[in-house]
Amino acid sequence: MLMTDIIAKKRDKIELDEKEIGFFISGAADGSIPDYQLSALLMAIYLNGMTENETVYMTLHMARSGDMLDLSALGDKTVDKHSTGGVGDKTTLVCAPIAAALGCTVAKMSGRGLGHTGGTVDKFESITGYKTSITTEEFLSTAEKFGLCITGHSKNFTPADSKLYSLRDVTATVESIPLIASSIMSKKIAAGAKNILLDVKYGNGAFMKDAASAEILAGEMIKIGNNLGRNTRALITDMNIPLGRAVGNSVEVKEAVDILNGHGDKRLTELCIALAANMYSLCFKCDIEDAKLKARRVIDDGTAFKKLCQSVSALGGDCDLLTGKRDFPAADGSIDIYAECNGYISDIDSMTVGKASGTAGAGRETADEKIDYSAGIILHKTYGDKVTKGEKIATVMGKRQKISDAALLLESAFSYSGKRPPEKPVVYKMIERI
Amino acid sequence: MLMTDIIAKKRDKIELDEKEIGFFISGAADGSIPDYQLSALLMAIYLNGMTENETVYMTLHMARSGDMLDLSALGDKTVDKHSTGGVGDKTTLVCAPIAAALGCTVAKMSGRGLGHTGGTVDKFESITGYKTSITTEEFLSTAEKFGLCITGHSKNFTPADSKLYSLRDVTATVESIPLIASSIMSKKIAAGAKNILLDVKYGNGAFMKDAASAEILAGEMIKIGNNLGRNTRALITDMNIPLGRAVGNSVEVKEAVDILNGHGDKRLTELCIALAANMYSLCFKCDIEDAKLKARRVIDDGTAFKKLCQSVSALGGDCDLLTGKRDFPAADGSIDIYAECNGYISDIDSMTVGKASGTAGAGRETADEKIDYSAGIILHKTYGDKVTKGEKIATVMGKRQKISDAALLLESAFSYSGKRPPEKPVVYKMIERI
Repeated sequence: MLMTDIIAKKRDKIELDEKEIGFFISGAADGSIPDYQLSALLMAIYLNGMTENETVYMTLHMARSGDMLDLSALGDKTVDKHSTGGVGDKTTLVCAPIAAALGCTVAKMSGRGLGHTGGTVDKFESITGYKTSITTEEFLSTAEKFGLCITGHSKNFTPADSKLYSLRDVTATVESIPLIASSIMSKKIAAGAKNILLDVKYGNGAFMKDAASAEILAGEMIKIGNNLGRNTRALITDMNIPLGRAVGNSVEVKEAVDILNGHGDKRLTELCIALAANMYSLCFKCDIEDAKLKARRVIDDGTAFKKLCQSVSALGGDCDLLTGKRDFPAADGSIDIYAECNGYISDIDSMTVGKASGTAGAGRETADEKIDYSAGIILHKTYGDKVTKGEKIATVMGKRQKISDAALLLESAFSYSGKRPPEKPVVYKMIERI
Repeated sequence: MLMTDIIAKKRDKIELDEKEIGFFISGAADGSIPDYQLSALLMAIYLNGMTENETVYMTLHMARSGDMLDLSALGDKTVDKHSTGGVGDKTTLVCAPIAAALGCTVAKMSGRGLGHTGGTVDKFESITGYKTSITTEEFLSTAEKFGLCITGHSKNFTPADSKLYSLRDVTATVESIPLIASSIMSKKIAAGAKNILLDVKYGNGAFMKDAASAEILAGEMIKIGNNLGRNTRALITDMNIPLGRAVGNSVEVKEAVDILNGHGDKRLTELCIALAANMYSLCFKCDIEDAKLKARRVIDDGTAFKKLCQSVSALGGDCDLLTGKRDFPAADGSIDIYAECNGYISDIDSMTVGKASGTAGAGRETADEKIDYSAGIILHKTYGDKVTKGEKIATVMGKRQKISDAALLLESAFSYSGKRPPEKPVVYKMIERI
């Protein structure tokens, strides 16, 4: 088989068969196909698209290009949840313990984040002692015991996707629905859960800028998941304003604890309940409103929070940081931000808040950069709140030499209006079958 | 300027400006832009095309990426001729001396051929002693003295084109009209002649398979040439059957001499006269039929052949090989081919003849392969000739261990018919302005 023939077929809009897709995916993983041929193919895919069959085979072969987790010993209530990424998105830290408390098994190996804030694994790592590199046996036994185990994934996880992703980033071929969908889903397929809930976000703080394109991406991923034998469902959710009040790493863990204790931000709580209820209903096929009631119940009776503590302890994390007996390490410095006028907060630009958080030290641009876990942002006031000029509305924390730049950015994220702005529902739609 | 932004623009069908084109062309030449970005851009160009402005700027910057020949000291009757490549195409060896005899200046630095037979420079190199690497001073003074000098070009000739061409070859992006046109024309622009005649071939032995696509390519090149201040004209010519009776290197030189001596293949002579007349008429703006008469006259009176001998001698070549006083070195072995049935030769598949010649050793697949100058093919009978079963129709020459394979291929190139096949005019059309 010749790579030039495969490129030429895609160039001429002829469907590639499974063997051809397997050939270039394994060549991407083992380095036998040179980058210049892969990038020519990626551009041809970007411009000519992919059929459903092609996307499914591409996903499957990318998943198989490295280690595949076998969760079958944990039964068929295993559930994974994936977010396409947002600002202040700590929902996994909330909905995973709730789902576990309801009887699902959330056994999840995640990657580290690249961008303005850390990924879920980075957030857990801000809990002193938390191990993000454990053996598969330890991972499975913890998941079996508590229904919840979230840790980092092995080095040899979907290497073909890693290769193609790094090439897409430098060849203007990132924003392609089949390439995005197969990249995300290859990691979900390799991660092994029987049920998959996708949180596909839209808005200025998200990868997809509007609800319509988020729906298209969600549809593509659902088709792939269902084709490959996973129950897959998606929520289309709003990411125009930051999620909750905290953006960073340890500050997001603290906010997640607040939500699990029943006294967190209302809009964020609503999203976490929706996500947890959908995870539960995917596993147990029950009515979604009934599932939401159950989710609220395990918050109210403390079992969800207990699940989080048990799982964190099992992975060596200091649970006293969650119960509040001990405080997370404080940041080097902080700056408060004040309202610029009287009125209502009519917008908080998520992307700018994310950049401010990154500037403060909460994220990384390259894989080997170190995150400042204590860096981040607290929003004392949020979208729709009435404020008085000079009132404290936010605080940015991080290294002293970085936070003034971050504070300037953060200030610019706020807009004000004399009128109360309309509510912004957080869950736009649920999609299951395409 | 970021290469990813340039790729994204072309991907989104937005016209690139001259600065952007200059940026990626110089990056291709100096290696500062990685192959994977160049190949993504090439695929985007292949699929989205290029505007006239883009193609002109691309040509100009590729020409300028290396040495530019300045022929201004030779006056404004300098003329270059380019063929898109065929089987048995020794026309330059004939039309260039004719044009020189008519008062044009043919000062031409050519590349070596890759493929079934050598390029023009390889053919000249089969003349013992002929120098294909001389100084610019020597080149210009020979051209001034005799109106004719053909040699190899410098190492630093259109390096951006060389880079892009080698990438196109392995990324399925060769067959793109703007890429082919700018590649060819960049070399013509760098080569410096004021007048450019293009011989754009179509048919199974050519790069373009039909006359319509040859015309499109010709039109694109004429636009580029005229935009960049060169008088550019094209002949669209047939390449469905081999040109003349010889395919190889020294055998083609001998056939060129036959034509210049007035006793060569009729169809090939017609093409050479048409090419020479067009070169002359480009320089001197005269009527084409009048130019053809003049061309025939310098064949008949021997001045064209004399030009060839003078120029070959000036470059150290052994002229006795041209006059017939001495023979070219003989091939290691030869095999004759016989007619398979009674009737007319109704087809000689050019591509197969080319492959047979390459198999015999007359061509090269990689730049460092050595050509066997004495290898090649002689067609004793050609298209339309009446033959008797068992009559000798062709001979293949080359290394003994290679020629049996070549002979088998050559045999398969012939088709026979009971009826005389229709004539195949060699010149299809002349195109000047688009």
